[in-house]
Amino acid sequence: MFRKLIFAFSLVAGSLAAQPATGNLQPAAGFIKEFGTMWTFDAPPLAYWKARYDFVPDKQWLDHVRLSALRIPGCSASFVSASGLVMTNHHCGRDCTAESSSADSNYIQTGFAAASLADEKKCSNMWADQLQSIQDVTARVQKAMDAKTASAQVLQRAAEIDRIQKECATDAATICEVVTFYQGGMYSLYKYHHWTDVRLVMAPEGDIAFFGGDPDNFTYPRYDLDLTLLRVYENGQPLKPRDYLKWSPSGAAEGELVFVTGNPASTGRLLTLAQMEYLRDVDYPDRLAGYERMLDIYRPLAAASPEGARAYQNLVFTYENSKKAVTGYRAGLLDSSIMARKRAFERDFRRRIDADEALRAKYGGTWGAIDAAVREQKILAPQLLWPSFGGGSKLLGWAGNIVRIPAQLGLPDSMRLAEYRGNASATLKQTIATASPDTSFERLALAATFNAWKKALPAANPILQAALAYGNGNADSAAAVIMRQTALATPEGRRSLVNASAAALAVSKDPLIRLARMIEPANRRLLDRNAKLDATISANAALIGQAIFAAYGTSLPPDATFTLRISDGVVAGYPYNGTIAPYKTTFHGMYDRSASFDDKPPFKLPQRWVDGKDRLDLSTPINFVSTNDIIGGNSGSPVINRYGEVVGLIFDGNIEMLPNRFIFTDAVSRSVSVHSRGIIEALRKLYNGDRIANELEGR
Amino acid sequence: MFRKLIFAFSLVAGSLAAQPATGNLQPAAGFIKEFGTMWTFDAPPLAYWKARYDFVPDKQWLDHVRLSALRIPGCSASFVSASGLVMTNHHCGRDCTAESSSADSNYIQTGFAAASLADEKKCSNMWADQLQSIQDVTARVQKAMDAKTASAQVLQRAAEIDRIQKECATDAATICEVVTFYQGGMYSLYKYHHWTDVRLVMAPEGDIAFFGGDPDNFTYPRYDLDLTLLRVYENGQPLKPRDYLKWSPSGAAEGELVFVTGNPASTGRLLTLAQMEYLRDVDYPDRLAGYERMLDIYRPLAAASPEGARAYQNLVFTYENSKKAVTGYRAGLLDSSIMARKRAFERDFRRRIDADEALRAKYGGTWGAIDAAVREQKILAPQLLWPSFGGGSKLLGWAGNIVRIPAQLGLPDSMRLAEYRGNASATLKQTIATASPDTSFERLALAATFNAWKKALPAANPILQAALAYGNGNADSAAAVIMRQTALATPEGRRSLVNASAAALAVSKDPLIRLARMIEPANRRLLDRNAKLDATISANAALIGQAIFAAYGTSLPPDATFTLRISDGVVAGYPYNGTIAPYKTTFHGMYDRSASFDDKPPFKLPQRWVDGKDRLDLSTPINFVSTNDIIGGNSGSPVINRYGEVVGLIFDGNIEMLPNRFIFTDAVSRSVSVHSRGIIEALRKLYNGDRIANELEGR
Repeated sequence: MFRKLIFAFSLVAGSLAAQPATGNLQPAAGFIKEFGTMWTFDAPPLAYWKARYDFVPDKQWLDHVRLSALRIPGCSASFVSASGLVMTNHHCGRDCTAESSSADSNYIQTGFAAASLADEKKCSNMWADQLQSIQDVTARVQKAMDAKTASAQVLQRAAEIDRIQKECATDAATICEVVTFYQGGMYSLYKYHHWTDVRLVMAPEGDIAFFGGDPDNFTYPRYDLDLTLLRVYENGQPLKPRDYLKWSPSGAAEGELVFVTGNPASTGRLLTLAQMEYLRDVDYPDRLAGYERMLDIYRPLAAASPEGARAYQNLVFTYENSKKAVTGYRAGLLDSSIMARKRAFERDFRRRIDADEALRAKYGGTWGAIDAAVREQKILAPQLLWPSFGGGSKLLGWAGNIVRIPAQLGLPDSMRLAEYRGNASATLKQTIATASPDTSFERLALAATFNAWKKALPAANPILQAALAYGNGNADSAAAVIMRQTALATPEGRRSLVNASAAALAVSKDPLIRLARMIEPANRRLLDRNAKLDATISANAALIGQAIFAAYGTSLPPDATFTLRISDGVVAGYPYNGTIAPYKTTFHGMYDRSASFDDKPPFKLPQRWVDGKDRLDLSTPINFVSTNDIIGGNSGSPVINRYGEVVGLIFDGNIEMLPNRFIFTDAVSRSVSVHSRGIIEALRKLYNGDRIANELEGR
Repeated sequence: MFRKLIFAFSLVAGSLAAQPATGNLQPAAGFIKEFGTMWTFDAPPLAYWKARYDFVPDKQWLDHVRLSALRIPGCSASFVSASGLVMTNHHCGRDCTAESSSADSNYIQTGFAAASLADEKKCSNMWADQLQSIQDVTARVQKAMDAKTASAQVLQRAAEIDRIQKECATDAATICEVVTFYQGGMYSLYKYHHWTDVRLVMAPEGDIAFFGGDPDNFTYPRYDLDLTLLRVYENGQPLKPRDYLKWSPSGAAEGELVFVTGNPASTGRLLTLAQMEYLRDVDYPDRLAGYERMLDIYRPLAAASPEGARAYQNLVFTYENSKKAVTGYRAGLLDSSIMARKRAFERDFRRRIDADEALRAKYGGTWGAIDAAVREQKILAPQLLWPSFGGGSKLLGWAGNIVRIPAQLGLPDSMRLAEYRGNASATLKQTIATASPDTSFERLALAATFNAWKKALPAANPILQAALAYGNGNADSAAAVIMRQTALATPEGRRSLVNASAAALAVSKDPLIRLARMIEPANRRLLDRNAKLDATISANAALIGQAIFAAYGTSLPPDATFTLRISDGVVAGYPYNGTIAPYKTTFHGMYDRSASFDDKPPFKLPQRWVDGKDRLDLSTPINFVSTNDIIGGNSGSPVINRYGEVVGLIFDGNIEMLPNRFIFTDAVSRSVSVHSRGIIEALRKLYNGDRIANELEGR
C-alpha cells in the first residue's frame, strides 16, 4: 500500500464568487502511452476510449463519477451510499481510527464497526472535498503576468491566482484552488464542496488491513483488507449526497474495463532525459547508499535482543521500504527499452518545437540549459555527499545548526536559509536542548559517516584527517572517542552550546563543534551553488512543461497534481516469477500466507480472523489487479466498472509499478485493489456488519 | 518439476566378479561454492559439514542413506518402509500409472491407491537400482591406456571399462558401471543391486501432481502432490530391505539441515569461461530465437479456435517451457557477478596449473585451444543457422534427407553420417512416406524460415533469392506457392520422391527438392567443420576436467553423472517479488491458486480435492524449499533430516535455480519438495490411504 507515499497535502484555500463548471468533453487527439492515463475531467480522452474499449461515457456519467469522488487528507475516497457513507483505505483513516480509540479499546488493534449511527465516531482532523467544477483560467493568469522580469512575473502570477481563488470561494463550505498544469502551460480553477463533519463507521484491525506488513508492501499477490468506512454528516445528520457510487453485485471480473477516480499526488513524466539520467546515476544511488548505511547500523541493533527489535525493527522496515521504492523507481530508468521510448518521445517533441519558429525561439534553448546544469550537479554531488551534516548522526547535524545559528541570526530574516527564518531558530535550539538522542546509535552513525568519508575523499582531506585523528586513523575508534568527549551527548552540554556566543563557538574544542566549523563554509558554498543550479533546472523545466502543452495540448495528461483524475484500465493478471500472477486472490491465500510463515508477524492474523475462518467462504476474492495508472495520493480511490458501480478499492501498486513514476508501462505493472466482494464477505461474516453491508449493497 | 528434464538414461551394464566397497570417509579439503554440493558417497565433505552445520555423520549413517536411495529410469527414488515401499515423483512413475490403467479407468486422470497388496499393479518397464559399492578404478583404466595415439587410447579405455564391468557383474541382479568423473580425471566402479519386479501402489491424479502445469513448472511458491508410491517385490513377495528411510513425525522445519540423496544427471560447472560465453552469446540466443519463431506460429493457431487449442496448446506450453529453461540457464551467464566468480576461479585454477611444470606441460595449452575453436564456431554459427534443414518445417527437412540419401547410401556404412547408417535410411524413407504433416503449420514454418533467412543473409544470397522468387520477393507468398507446388505435401508425392534415383533428384523441379539441393553442399561443409571443432573442444575439455582433479582433487564435486550424490542444504525461504517467499506452502494456497484462476486448467483441481476439501486440515504444508543442489535426474529424491528421516520429496527447482546448471549459488535458488506431512494428510483424508500412511509412518 501507499503507506509511505501518502501525500502530505497543504491546502491552499480562498473565498469569493463561484465560477460555473465548463466540463470540456472534446476528445483528446492521439495517445502516447508512456505519459499514462491520469486524465483530467475536463479533457477525457473520449476518442481513445471509444477506439480502445468501445466505451463512450456521456456527460452525465462523467459528472456522476466525478461528484461521487472525494479528496480527503493525503488520500482519495468516494461516496458509496445514499446516506453519505465514504469508502477509503485503512491507512488513510488511520488517525481517525486511532483517536477514536480509548484507554480500554485500541481500534487499530481490535478493529471497529459502529453498531448504529449513534456509535459512529467524529474524527477531529478529517475532511472531504467534492470537485464541483473545473474552469480554464490560463488566459487570465497569463494576461496578468505582463512584467518584464521573471521574478516580477512570479509575484504577479501568485497575486492573480490568489485573486481568482478568493473570488471563487464564496463561503466556508467552498474551497477553490488554481491548479498549475504542465508547469505553467495551463491553469485551471478547481472548485470543491468541503465537508468537515466526518465520522468513523468501520475499520478492521491494522494487522489485516496491512497484512504482510512492510515485506509485502508494494507487492502482489496480496491479501489486505485495507479499508476504512467513514460517513459525512451535515447539520448533525448523515449527508444525502445526490451522487454516490452503487455497489456492483459481482465485483471486478477478469478482462473487465475499470476506471479509477482519485487524486494522484506526484509523477515525473515530463522530466527531460537529462533529469532522469541525473536521478538514475547520481541522486538515487546516493540515496540508496544512505539507506544501506542506516540499515547496516539498525539491522544489527534490531537483531541483538528483543529490546533492540522493539526499538529498531520499525526503522529497519522503514529504510527497507524506502530502498524498495527507490530501487523500483530507478529500475525503470535503468531499463534500456523504457528509456529508449523516452528518448524517442524527446526526439519527436524537440522536432515539433524546432519546426515552429516561435516555439523554437521560446523553448529551443531549454534542453541545453538543463543539460549544462545537470552536468555541473553531477560534479558537485560527490563533494556535497560528505559534508552533508547528518548521514544519520543527529549530533553532527546539531553541531552544524549550532555553528550556523549565530551567523544566520546576524542576517536580515529574508536573507537567512529557510530553516533559520522567523522563530525557526528558537524552535531548533529548543529541540536540540530537550531531545534525548540514542547514544549507541549515534556512535555507530558517526563511525558510518567517517567510513563513508574515507571511501569518498582523498586521504589528505583536512576534515577527514581531523575526524580520524580522534581515533588514530580508525573511524570506529574516532567515533567512540568523540562520543565520550562531545558535550552534545549530554542535555546540559547541548543547553550550554545552543546558548554559546559566536566567539565562544569559534574557539570551542568540542570535537563535533570543531568538525562542524570546518565543514560549514565549504558545505555552504556547494549548497548555494547547487541551489542556483536547481533554480535554473526548475525554470527551464517549467518552460518544457509549457512547450509540451504547446506541442501536444491535453492529449498528454499532465503530471499528477493531487487533483481528481480518471484512469482507464483492465482487470488482468500478468507474467511474474516465471509463471502467471492471477487477476485476483482469495481468502484462502491469506490463510496460506499466514500458515506458510507459521503465523509470525507481519503474517499473523487477528484473532477474529482465526476464530471466524469457518464462517467465511474462503474462495471469496480479497484483492485484484488492473492496469489503471495510479500513484501515491490515489490511496482510497474507488475502482468502478462501466456502469459506475464499485468493484474495488485501490490501495497499492505491485513492485513492477514503481518505475511508472517516470514512464508509464502496463506490460507487468498493476494497481492493487481490495475486491468489493471481499469487503462484503468480511463485513457480514466477521464484523457483525450487516447494517453497513446492506447500506453498501443498497438493500 | 523436472518433467522436461527427466534424464534419458541408457544403462551400460556388465557381469563378472564383484569388488568390495571402499567407502572413503576422508574429509574433502576446502569448499569452492560455485561448484555446488553434489557430493559423491566416496568423498563426503566431512570437514565442511562439521564446520558449517556441526554435523559429522558416521560411516553407518552414510551407508544407511546410500542403501536407502534408489535409481529408477530417468529419476531417483528411495525405500521408505520395511516392506519395500518406494517413494518417487508422479512424473517418474507416470508410464507405470498409465499402463496400469484400463479401458474404463484412466489412473492419470482419476488417481490410484491400491486397497491391498493384491491390488498393486506390476509395471512392465520399471526397475530400481541400489548402489552397493563404489571402487576407484582410475589407476587400472589409466594403466590400460598405453597406446601412442589418442584414438587408440580411447579404444583401450572402452575395452578396459568393459572388462571391469563384466568382471564385476556376477549375476543378473547385479549391475556394474564404470563412471567417468572429471572428464577422465577419475574412474569409479559403481555396483548396483537391480530389481525389476516393481509395482504401482499409489499415484494421485495428474492434475494435482502437476497442479499449475507448465506455467508453474520451475517455479515456487508451488502446490503439487508430485508423488508415486511403488513397491519392490522379490520372488513375488514384498521386499524386506535392510535399509529404508523412516518417516519424520514433523516433516521439514524452517532452518533445518536437510540432505538430498539422488542422481543428478547433467551439469556444466567444469566448462571453461570461453565455453560458457559461447553458450551465452551464440548457442542459447539461437535456440531462443528458434523457440520464438515456433511460438509465433503456434500461438495464433492455438488461439484461433477450440480445435486449434486442442491441437496446438500443448506445443505452445512445450516451447514456452523450453524458453523458460534456456532463458534461466542463460540468466546466470548474463549475471556479471556470477561470471566474475567463474573468472576468479579460472584465474586461480590456471595459476595452479602454471605453477607446476608437469601440469603446465600437460594442460597449459588447453584453454588456448578451446578459445580458438570457440572463436571459429562463433563465426560459423550465423552461417550454420540458415541452411539448417528444418527451422520448424518438416517438409524442408525431409527434402534435405531425400537429397542426401542416394549419396549417403553410396558410401560404406561407417563413412555415412550417423542418421543414415545401418537401416536408418530405410526407416527414414518409411517415415517420410507415411507421415501426415500438418500443412497449415508447414506453410507458416516455411514462411518463418524464409523471413529468418531474409534477416540473416545478404539480399544477393542465391538460396535466399531462389526461395523468395517463388513469391515475387515475399516470404509468405513464396511459402504459399511452394506448398501448392511441392510433391512433398502429398503422400503419393513423398512416396515417389523417396524412391527417386539420384539422377532424377538432380534435375527435379520440385521447389523444396531444388532448395535442398542448393543448401546441401555448403551446409555439409559447415557441419563437418563444426563437428571437428566440437571434437577439439571436447578433447581439451576432457583435459581440463583432469586438470581440475589434479589441482583440487575431490574437494570440488564432479559434474553430475546420473549417479548417486548427497547434497547438503537448509530449509529456507528467500527474497522474491519484492517480498519474501515462505519456506513452505499449505493446502490453503492450492485452493487459493485454483480459485484465483476461476478453477481454469491448469489450475483446476481434481473432483476428489473439490469434494474432500472440508476433510483436510488446510494449513498442512504441501511443498517447501531448501538450498540443496539438485538438477534433472534428482526428481524423486528423498529429502532427509540429520536423523535420516524423510521430511520431503524433491520434485523441482525454482526459476532462480536454472542458472545453477553452470554456477551454483544459493542466495535465491531453491530446491522444491513435497512436504512429508502433506503426503500423509492427502493419503489419509482423500485417498483412503490409511494402509499406506500407516506403513510410511511405521505404525
